[in-house]
Amino acid sequence: MAAKKAKPIVGIIMGSSSDLEVMTAASTVLEELGVAHEIVVTSAHRSPKQTGEYAAGAKRRGLKVLIVGAGRAAHLAGAVAAQTNLPVLGVPLESGALAGVDALLSTVQMPSGVPVGTLAIGSAGAKNAALLAAQILALSDGALAGRLDRRKAKMAQDVPGVVKQVLPGGK
Amino acid sequence: MAAKKAKPIVGIIMGSSSDLEVMTAASTVLEELGVAHEIVVTSAHRSPKQTGEYAAGAKRRGLKVLIVGAGRAAHLAGAVAAQTNLPVLGVPLESGALAGVDALLSTVQMPSGVPVGTLAIGSAGAKNAALLAAQILALSDGALAGRLDRRKAKMAQDVPGVVKQVLPGGK
Amino acid sequence: MAAKKAKPIVGIIMGSSSDLEVMTAASTVLEELGVAHEIVVTSAHRSPKQTGEYAAGAKRRGLKVLIVGAGRAAHLAGAVAAQTNLPVLGVPLESGALAGVDALLSTVQMPSGVPVGTLAIGSAGAKNAALLAAQILALSDGALAGRLDRRKAKMAQDVPGVVKQVLPGGK
Amino acid sequence: MAAKKAKPIVGIIMGSSSDLEVMTAASTVLEELGVAHEIVVTSAHRSPKQTGEYAAGAKRRGLKVLIVGAGRAAHLAGAVAAQTNLPVLGVPLESGALAGVDALLSTVQMPSGVPVGTLAIGSAGAKNAALLAAQILALSDGALAGRLDRRKAKMAQDVPGVVKQVLPGGK
Amino acid sequence: MAAKKAKPIVGIIMGSSSDLEVMTAASTVLEELGVAHEIVVTSAHRSPKQTGEYAAGAKRRGLKVLIVGAGRAAHLAGAVAAQTNLPVLGVPLESGALAGVDALLSTVQMPSGVPVGTLAIGSAGAKNAALLAAQILALSDGALAGRLDRRKAKMAQDVPGVVKQVLPGGK
Amino acid sequence: MAAKKAKPIVGIIMGSSSDLEVMTAASTVLEELGVAHEIVVTSAHRSPKQTGEYAAGAKRRGLKVLIVGAGRAAHLAGAVAAQTNLPVLGVPLESGALAGVDALLSTVQMPSGVPVGTLAIGSAGAKNAALLAAQILALSDGALAGRLDRRKAKMAQDVPGVVKQVLPGGK
Amino acid sequence: MAAKKAKPIVGIIMGSSSDLEVMTAASTVLEELGVAHEIVVTSAHRSPKQTGEYAAGAKRRGLKVLIVGAGRAAHLAGAVAAQTNLPVLGVPLESGALAGVDALLSTVQMPSGVPVGTLAIGSAGAKNAALLAAQILALSDGALAGRLDRRKAKMAQDVPGVVKQVLPGGK
Amino acid sequence: MAAKKAKPIVGIIMGSSSDLEVMTAASTVLEELGVAHEIVVTSAHRSPKQTGEYAAGAKRRGLKVLIVGAGRAAHLAGAVAAQTNLPVLGVPLESGALAGVDALLSTVQMPSGVPVGTLAIGSAGAKNAALLAAQILALSDGALAGRLDRRKAKMAQDVPGVVKQVLPGGK
Repeated sequence: MAAKKAKPIVGIIMGSSSDLEVMTAASTVLEELGVAHEIVVTSAHRSPKQTGEYAAGAKRRGLKVLIVGAGRAAHLAGAVAAQTNLPVLGVPLESGALAGVDALLSTVQMPSGVPVGTLAIGSAGAKNAALLAAQILALSDGALAGRLDRRKAKMAQDVPGVVKQVLPGGK
Repeated sequence: MAAKKAKPIVGIIMGSSSDLEVMTAASTVLEELGVAHEIVVTSAHRSPKQTGEYAAGAKRRGLKVLIVGAGRAAHLAGAVAAQTNLPVLGVPLESGALAGVDALLSTVQMPSGVPVGTLAIGSAGAKNAALLAAQILALSDGALAGRLDRRKAKMAQDVPGVVKQVLPGGK
Repeated sequence: MAAKKAKPIVGIIMGSSSDLEVMTAASTVLEELGVAHEIVVTSAHRSPKQTGEYAAGAKRRGLKVLIVGAGRAAHLAGAVAAQTNLPVLGVPLESGALAGVDALLSTVQMPSGVPVGTLAIGSAGAKNAALLAAQILALSDGALAGRLDRRKAKMAQDVPGVVKQVLPGGK
Repeated sequence: MAAKKAKPIVGIIMGSSSDLEVMTAASTVLEELGVAHEIVVTSAHRSPKQTGEYAAGAKRRGLKVLIVGAGRAAHLAGAVAAQTNLPVLGVPLESGALAGVDALLSTVQMPSGVPVGTLAIGSAGAKNAALLAAQILALSDGALAGRLDRRKAKMAQDVPGVVKQVLPGGK
Repeated sequence: MAAKKAKPIVGIIMGSSSDLEVMTAASTVLEELGVAHEIVVTSAHRSPKQTGEYAAGAKRRGLKVLIVGAGRAAHLAGAVAAQTNLPVLGVPLESGALAGVDALLSTVQMPSGVPVGTLAIGSAGAKNAALLAAQILALSDGALAGRLDRRKAKMAQDVPGVVKQVLPGGK
Repeated sequence: MAAKKAKPIVGIIMGSSSDLEVMTAASTVLEELGVAHEIVVTSAHRSPKQTGEYAAGAKRRGLKVLIVGAGRAAHLAGAVAAQTNLPVLGVPLESGALAGVDALLSTVQMPSGVPVGTLAIGSAGAKNAALLAAQILALSDGALAGRLDRRKAKMAQDVPGVVKQVLPGGK
Repeated sequence: MAAKKAKPIVGIIMGSSSDLEVMTAASTVLEELGVAHEIVVTSAHRSPKQTGEYAAGAKRRGLKVLIVGAGRAAHLAGAVAAQTNLPVLGVPLESGALAGVDALLSTVQMPSGVPVGTLAIGSAGAKNAALLAAQILALSDGALAGRLDRRKAKMAQDVPGVVKQVLPGGK
Repeated sequence: MAAKKAKPIVGIIMGSSSDLEVMTAASTVLEELGVAHEIVVTSAHRSPKQTGEYAAGAKRRGLKVLIVGAGRAAHLAGAVAAQTNLPVLGVPLESGALAGVDALLSTVQMPSGVPVGTLAIGSAGAKNAALLAAQILALSDGALAGRLDRRKAKMAQDVPGVVKQVLPGGK
């Protein structure tokens, strides 16, 4: 029952509708884990006021963790973190010429005082942001912790170990 | 009426006809904003004399801002800036093996004394160079300033905010 | 009273005693915020068994968040995250020739399934890891949330704004 | 007389008092050119509200160009540009482990719609930001244009050309 | 006869079944050289216990050299090397946004005390890991040494030297 | 007549037959300029003896300039330069994961005492190596110098200059 | 007794006497492990003939593993590997402007057919090359294997684990 | 006698007097080899006209090879090469934050049609540019060729080969 939530407790935020495809990976993981969440498109640069208001009001609206994906000069996670003390998790996205290196450095190299917990570039990072959000929520949600533990155990079982032996004759 | 120009006031310069496709993005933005401009193909390396004469004569011909796109060892913006005190905006282009990193560093790392205001690699940079040129021109063109403000306001309105809530049942 | 803890709830882990100086920044922030924690030196490569046992037993011992700092091929955060579902926060450290870029990529580019929330390279990252840990703990500790909010408000007040006007006479 | 200004027309903005030393290079150039300006310390991350209000109100207060220096995940120039249509010039600063590469990419790789004209990393960039600001202002200030032209001419004269001939005897 | 092995003496280990295609290049080379080996899929992060047990038990099971391929934050070679004194050879794999640079640095920048002999990124590295393993085994297997020497001689003969002369007439 | 050569005076050397396509660009330029040359496939690593003998004997065979293209850990140009005092021009080739950055650094970062004049990565570099070789030969071949000057003049003429003016009406 | 060697079985090779300080770290580790070795200064570029002869004759002289350190365009390990089927271990050295990145890529990105097992940049790499050489030799030297195992066990014991608990009172 | 020159035949060009110290290394090598040369300080950006005139007139003044050193967005070698068909050799200099990587890419990544033969970053590159210039001149100067060959032979002799054997007793 613990996972049945009337209201979103995680916000998945991204800077552009074109990021929806990659960031949906985060939504899928949260849904599998039974974590209510919402998906938000808002930009640090194009809609700064909307972004600031969303971030500043997130805690009051019941959100607990914010996942933020952005590409290029990826300021969105930092802009959100500047306005809230909720944990903010950043996902650098590949966009443009630099394969996400720009987004990675823009997201992770935050100055002292305003943390963004940064995950890998792209969809692996999006999935892991969802898992890290769930791990955070599971600190006070035993049922969710159990689901995470079963998922981790199954993940280990799915790795096959020795798959083949090649024993050539003498030459 | 202020935007009705008999003569170009922005020059969009690039080093090769193969850069036309990307740099047309700058032209399109200027056209939308009603800014008269011209498109120039001239090379710092292959036609240095033509480049120098164009840059040195730009102010006299009525140009006010120069947008310069180039790839690889992208010297064109610097070569133009060396010959004029008009504001020069550089757009590093992707070309060859290095995804535009060479062009970015060649454009932005100008020595003290000869500035080039550098935008992002590729078409995002080309569009933004046009916007920055328009912002510069708008300092003395109230009508253009108004068009820029309306464009910025519309851009903010087009960002949707919360697009979806996912509320899984208990598990 | 909520912050008075009989037992550590955060582990600050690092791969070598030579990392103590940088990682102490995390300890200082946690101490200022009244968060009980312990400091651990254990290596993914030199003492893998000790590391695995510490990580696997961390939840049982009452720990809630793990902060892990390491340099070079910085596997420690990933090795810890492999053994627990507690949130793991990684701090890439400068060590050797590559200024921490190796540590950053080794920490942040985790494969899907095993997240490490990564902070900036060096002491800024260490401080921010402590703040992010506190933000996570504050989700269920209102007193800590209050302290974080006051800290954030004070941080904003300490930024001076306009500090000087320079109004040269005509020339 | 044109340069005698009762009020600042350029804002030199930086994220931290520790950036003052480098950014003073911009102030010095503006002072030499007789351009009234103000120096502002405000942070995109630590004082986002103050930063937003400063940027949004800059035009109304009579400012015409904004120079913004920041290090690491350098969001300040982008945060300012998000709130105004004044031209924003960015100066990436060296800070932390990555020699300003993080700041360069965070400043220059802005998404389409919100330009930041970026200069070189460090003090060369700070000086050039001031010169570019002056070039922009000179479009409608003939006296300033004259000062810029004389400065450029003098700069060319100060480069010595052939300084030495070495003519070894036969061997 | 020396190469006729009842049991594998080389382990080719990789973190994911998706790495099989690239790492098969190592298996093919070993098979051509008559070296018995086994192929193992086990993950440093998803199945750390299985990985640790495989590495710790490798010598006892008769293995002599371990080849380990992994991508992204490629900890697998280091995790194996932490548990054994058998020679460990690492192959960084391309995966995700960074073209294998992350895997290269994660594999090669091991701290003092736990070596991983690292080969090139991708299939060239996989082939060379197999050759280096064979060179190691050949130190005590004269027949294998002979096969390696013949292979090296043939490789040299297959390089054609001068292939064409172009002698244009005068112009 | 000067260009009518009975024997090759430029050697175009590459490490693998797979480099022929890119390096043919150098051959084409030399042929257009009437410079006799030969194309050689020899490897620093797979056929070191053949490479050493070719380089050491190049001057005796009448060669005057050596153009060397190689990818990855591109040692071929350096290996050739180690064995001759003929001018050696290096062309880094794209091959494998790193887009030619490895080849560039391996070719250009030669230690003091053994120069390799390095051109751009890929086919632009191959063409320019041929031009630089021709410039070197033209120091004592007036006819070739004339062909180079005409080629350079034509290149300048082919750059169009202003190609279009866009003069939007008022808005 | 097995370790008592009348003749060197490992060659530690470097390109310049200035590399002696860093590469001595490899010699020290081998001496601690009782492995006879010799130290050689020879250059791929300045003394290619001497280098080729040393590498080609190494096996005949009784050497079993070759450790090669070089900086910049570090071709030495590849030049040695081209001439022998002994295992070659490469150590990229910091030298010049690029912090060893050039040496790393020049050493590790070897083409298929000629492996170099590459260790970390600088002294950590030098030490680990010696350990990897010892691991290779220990495959047929039980006493050496024992010394390596004891060294590894002691290394694990020297890692302290929990070093401090910080338990702040309530605030 | 051939080396006794009444007039400079090599120009060593640099962008700033602050580059004199590094570029003097090129002058010293040329002086040792008896090659008459001149040292020129002229800037692509600050004194473009002087630079263009020097380059365009270099051949007429009797110069045969041009060595060009510059830092940051190092356009000087390209600007010179644009104006002459004399061979141009580029030396990227360390200056500012990026350790010469910007200068390397700005110098080497020239577009097809205008070659710059690029040497290593910094003083090693300056020395090698002088050697490459001498190799070019030696194609038509037998005495200089002889001096280069003796220098190369001496360089090889100065590399010591085996310097030490370490033969530990058994343990």
